[in-house]
Amino acid sequence: MEKKFRYRKIKRENFSIEKLAGCIRKGSRVHLAKAITLIESNRWDDFQKGQELLTLLMPYTGQSLRIGITGVPGAGKSTFIERLGTFLCQMGKKVAVLAVDPSSTVTHGSILGDKTRMEQLSKEPNAFIRPSPSGGTLGGVHRKTRETILLCEAAGYEIIFVETVGVGQSEVDVKTMVDMFLLLTITGAGDELQGLKKGIVELVDGVIVTKADGENRKRAIKTKNEYNQFLKFLRPKTDLWEPKAMICSNITGEGIREIWAFVEHFHEHLRKTNRFDEQRKEQLKDWLMSSIIDRLRQSFFEHEKVKKELPSTIEQVTKGNLPVSTAVEKILSLYHE
Amino acid sequence: MEKKFRYRKIKRENFSIEKLAGCIRKGSRVHLAKAITLIESNRWDDFQKGQELLTLLMPYTGQSLRIGITGVPGAGKSTFIERLGTFLCQMGKKVAVLAVDPSSTVTHGSILGDKTRMEQLSKEPNAFIRPSPSGGTLGGVHRKTRETILLCEAAGYEIIFVETVGVGQSEVDVKTMVDMFLLLTITGAGDELQGLKKGIVELVDGVIVTKADGENRKRAIKTKNEYNQFLKFLRPKTDLWEPKAMICSNITGEGIREIWAFVEHFHEHLRKTNRFDEQRKEQLKDWLMSSIIDRLRQSFFEHEKVKKELPSTIEQVTKGNLPVSTAVEKILSLYHE
Repeated sequence: MEKKFRYRKIKRENFSIEKLAGCIRKGSRVHLAKAITLIESNRWDDFQKGQELLTLLMPYTGQSLRIGITGVPGAGKSTFIERLGTFLCQMGKKVAVLAVDPSSTVTHGSILGDKTRMEQLSKEPNAFIRPSPSGGTLGGVHRKTRETILLCEAAGYEIIFVETVGVGQSEVDVKTMVDMFLLLTITGAGDELQGLKKGIVELVDGVIVTKADGENRKRAIKTKNEYNQFLKFLRPKTDLWEPKAMICSNITGEGIREIWAFVEHFHEHLRKTNRFDEQRKEQLKDWLMSSIIDRLRQSFFEHEKVKKELPSTIEQVTKGNLPVSTAVEKILSLYHE
Repeated sequence: MEKKFRYRKIKRENFSIEKLAGCIRKGSRVHLAKAITLIESNRWDDFQKGQELLTLLMPYTGQSLRIGITGVPGAGKSTFIERLGTFLCQMGKKVAVLAVDPSSTVTHGSILGDKTRMEQLSKEPNAFIRPSPSGGTLGGVHRKTRETILLCEAAGYEIIFVETVGVGQSEVDVKTMVDMFLLLTITGAGDELQGLKKGIVELVDGVIVTKADGENRKRAIKTKNEYNQFLKFLRPKTDLWEPKAMICSNITGEGIREIWAFVEHFHEHLRKTNRFDEQRKEQLKDWLMSSIIDRLRQSFFEHEKVKKELPSTIEQVTKGNLPVSTAVEKILSLYHE
């Protein structure tokens, strides 16, 4: 009896993961959201179910264009994504919006948390909006966002925007998970390029100067031209592609159509030069290797004996009673025991 | 018989390590050199003997002042160390000179390799000069230099110079193993600070403008003043210590006495503020933690099953047949089996 019951339980669980996969494939946003919750969970059994689901859905992933959007707070990232996203939905495209915010480990989702920020887009049946996941034990925000991208692709989303807060490590993280990376910027007090973090501009395929409306339009054009001059001096992120600066207005809608043409042109360029697949393969390999190191490190420092012995070993070493290399071998052998 | 023989062999080996330790303590340069060769060896049994030796000598380490010397090639580092070292030897101090050159993994010792570069100093009975070790499997140049410092201290050396080639990662490495860090620089075409790697200047406790003789003396003073102005803007590396720029000439000997007074003043400052011990403890802890991660990573990627399975796992992942997190768990479980 016991055995039979367990067998049936496993069958039922398998069935529900399979059913979930099926519903996602049919485009159910409710089931997609449920699956993402599984992926984002820090519980080991949820993690395993999520991996099972991902394995089932792998054949249906990879078909979207993944676009990273960065820019300082106030650059109008959400408004821009909403405007462009609505434009795309109305063209019949399926659009997903995700967010990466490493700080959300603490704040538990500080961007996109307020869905009303994309009120118009969220009403589109072809749109799916997901706030930033919080961190946690099983790989953090980075893993969760990457796997959410895959789920959205399996659900048929063709354009996936990944929004990042324009600070710290998040741009570098996002760059490693998207096909195209855009920087949003605003016109300031005339010395736009002064405060520019040059490191970020080197990572992008295009720059968009937002809020180009009313009295600000002229200044936005000036800023755009300055960026274009500056971009010429940089080695482009993508081979044989010249990053360009453009303007746009979320009020008048100016620039949205041109920006989309630019994105499509870039996409075509990636496809033609075979960089699309190559870049994704490189990203996957890098992700795999860094995940292995992270997990290895985590499993080491969570190892019972290591946790117990490390503090006294550190003390012996810093007191000069134990050579570092001897301490290293000692701690490593505890782990390998 | 067999057992007895093995027992005697172990006894003999133990004896020789103890004897080696004794000879080092008595100041034998030949035995010190032999011990360093043991530390630098990439053979596992030598490594273990070296660790045994270090453990014996630990109580006699830590008493020196460790001074890192950096600067671009041509800044006169070796000549400066020779001049200051000879000055110190003649004061009755015991001086050791080591080198860190990460590139020597390839070139097998490109700096200090030619001992004739410090001909005068090498004649001093109180001096010990050791060229840069080459890298290898057991922890690389970084570990070897650190452990060589300890051996030199056990041998009674009071001042230990660690010379680094002024390129790449070596300054950062050396900074983590010395008490004081000095930058050597030369006067150029008037725009000295232009080409300056600001990042390095932030790591140093003092700047020395060399070759301040003949027609160059005036320009060296100008460069010194420029550095002094620049240093005021930087947050000092060591709390409550204001880094200073000085001039020196290896030909006239000008500056050598002042530089030594500056070093002693700094040493006193470190002792008074308790930073001497604190800094060393921090360095030891950082070294321990980074060594653990390095060894863990090494032991992982050298694991037979991991080595065998990783290539096909990478292929499955980059082809999109296997989710990254699933691959990570799979590879990790092979390692933990």
